[in-house]
Amino acid sequence: MFREKIRVFDCTIRDGGLINDHEFSDDFVRAVYKALSEAGVDYMEIGYKNSKKLFSGEKFGKWKFCDDDDIRRVIDGISSNMKLSVMVDVGRVDIADVKPKKDSPVTMVRVASYVKDIDKAIHLVNQFADKGYETTVNIMAISRALDNEITEALEQLEKESKANVIYIVDSFGSMYQESTEFLAKKAMSIIKTKEIGIHAHNNQQMGFSNTIEAIIHGVNFVDGTVFGLGRAAGNCPLELLIGFLKNPKYDIRPILDLISKEFIPLREKMEWGYIIPYAITGMLDEHPKAAMELRASHKKENYREFYESIKGKDLD
Amino acid sequence: MFREKIRVFDCTIRDGGLINDHEFSDDFVRAVYKALSEAGVDYMEIGYKNSKKLFSGEKFGKWKFCDDDDIRRVIDGISSNMKLSVMVDVGRVDIADVKPKKDSPVTMVRVASYVKDIDKAIHLVNQFADKGYETTVNIMAISRALDNEITEALEQLEKESKANVIYIVDSFGSMYQESTEFLAKKAMSIIKTKEIGIHAHNNQQMGFSNTIEAIIHGVNFVDGTVFGLGRAAGNCPLELLIGFLKNPKYDIRPILDLISKEFIPLREKMEWGYIIPYAITGMLDEHPKAAMELRASHKKENYREFYESIKGKDLD
Repeated sequence: MFREKIRVFDCTIRDGGLINDHEFSDDFVRAVYKALSEAGVDYMEIGYKNSKKLFSGEKFGKWKFCDDDDIRRVIDGISSNMKLSVMVDVGRVDIADVKPKKDSPVTMVRVASYVKDIDKAIHLVNQFADKGYETTVNIMAISRALDNEITEALEQLEKESKANVIYIVDSFGSMYQESTEFLAKKAMSIIKTKEIGIHAHNNQQMGFSNTIEAIIHGVNFVDGTVFGLGRAAGNCPLELLIGFLKNPKYDIRPILDLISKEFIPLREKMEWGYIIPYAITGMLDEHPKAAMELRASHKKENYREFYESIKGKDLD
Repeated sequence: MFREKIRVFDCTIRDGGLINDHEFSDDFVRAVYKALSEAGVDYMEIGYKNSKKLFSGEKFGKWKFCDDDDIRRVIDGISSNMKLSVMVDVGRVDIADVKPKKDSPVTMVRVASYVKDIDKAIHLVNQFADKGYETTVNIMAISRALDNEITEALEQLEKESKANVIYIVDSFGSMYQESTEFLAKKAMSIIKTKEIGIHAHNNQQMGFSNTIEAIIHGVNFVDGTVFGLGRAAGNCPLELLIGFLKNPKYDIRPILDLISKEFIPLREKMEWGYIIPYAITGMLDEHPKAAMELRASHKKENYREFYESIKGKDLD
């Protein structure tokens, strides 16, 4: 697949930070930034921009806050054309913390929102756009929204928001390619002045496939993470995406090196990937939270009991 | 997806046997047979029917030969409606070893063949059909065959073979959903008197997705293995397939139990799954052999060097 407008967006450090409370070392973040830059990746999301009034800087690592000075330090001296992004959640950011784009190393701000909060998301994203940032709105948990709600949200985003990109987010890793096709076509039919993006979780090993499916139907912003790192089952593996895209500006080799040197050792310390309880929440279209609790317990391999407990909820 | 004609075909012991020279214990095979039977799986492939004149019974486990008596012993006393299958390779089977269907616990014989050997495969499969077996021809490495060769092979299989099912086999795990769609539609357009099957390897985490894609386009025989077990990257995970199919005759719970009790411990002893060298051979449409050799060496995590060595072959 070669389409000049496709943009590869890495969110390894941001999504991976959900596993370790954003406690990646500066050396690790530098290694990721350097390898992605060499690989020709277009964007790298380095963390969240959360208000320190809401979260303790002692309890969480620095990539939950993404101070400009911390970012400058880890990228210092590395040659790169890659743009940096931070994510904000509706209701968790203090807009006063965010300097105008011209004074920041960050290029893009992505606003994560459920469909029900889309008015707040538009209000928020427009403020970041006014500060000069490239912006996106990422519609989370879209697999559980009603069609009329999605239509209305997309129409509002098209008319009222200044966002450059609107993302479809398969938060629970529950989608098969038919749903991806349906949502991509729907977004393409409503969103005319912005790009569409896809962020696919990998609970059922569909992250990469759903991303390809979205590309086939016109989606140009595609998220991935190195070795699929990310909360619970993780994400579309960036290396597979780079292998699939035919644009010669991308080079998989620095990412292969990065996995050898940093991610194989990391896997001894952090758990993510194809793990049955996450596959179960994916196939049942549920948040992975219950599965994450299971994995932290002594019942971590009791899959049948877990399946029945989640299925039982349907009947409550 | 509910379609009454869909048949779930498990090849855990057969494909997994390629990792351990078919040395699964009787207890393990019994546990798999029992769980799959309880789960409502339609077919289970237990191994290969290889000639003992070609391979030593001392060097390989019994599931490389699948003597009827060995099969009878492991299924003895287990209530089951599941049919048993064995696979044969063109040129490696002694037809005299195979009793008539009425004297055997085996229901199906599958003939694996490259496109270039399709005449031999037809000659062979017709002999098994004449002995009373359900039969298939599995076209291996189809991603590397020219379109005219595939067309001719499919036309021959339709006209000259007595096989009940013709399988598309993505041996290298190199296919994306567009190729699967193309091949499924092509097979559906030529094969009118038989079913079509799909056997998808998982090098690029596309095994499950390609299987769904094939189902969407009319394929009714779908292969999977428990926890994706299989040579190199393994196969479409059976538990995901069962989770996707809506036919109430299937029950995922016995498979979840089986993974908890047998496959989590097994993973300490055998390697398969999403491993970067296998992803590399998948994206470059190469046989996993070189990657298997790498994994057995001290350079097992040298991904970049391996990638460059495989890419370099293109230029030779």
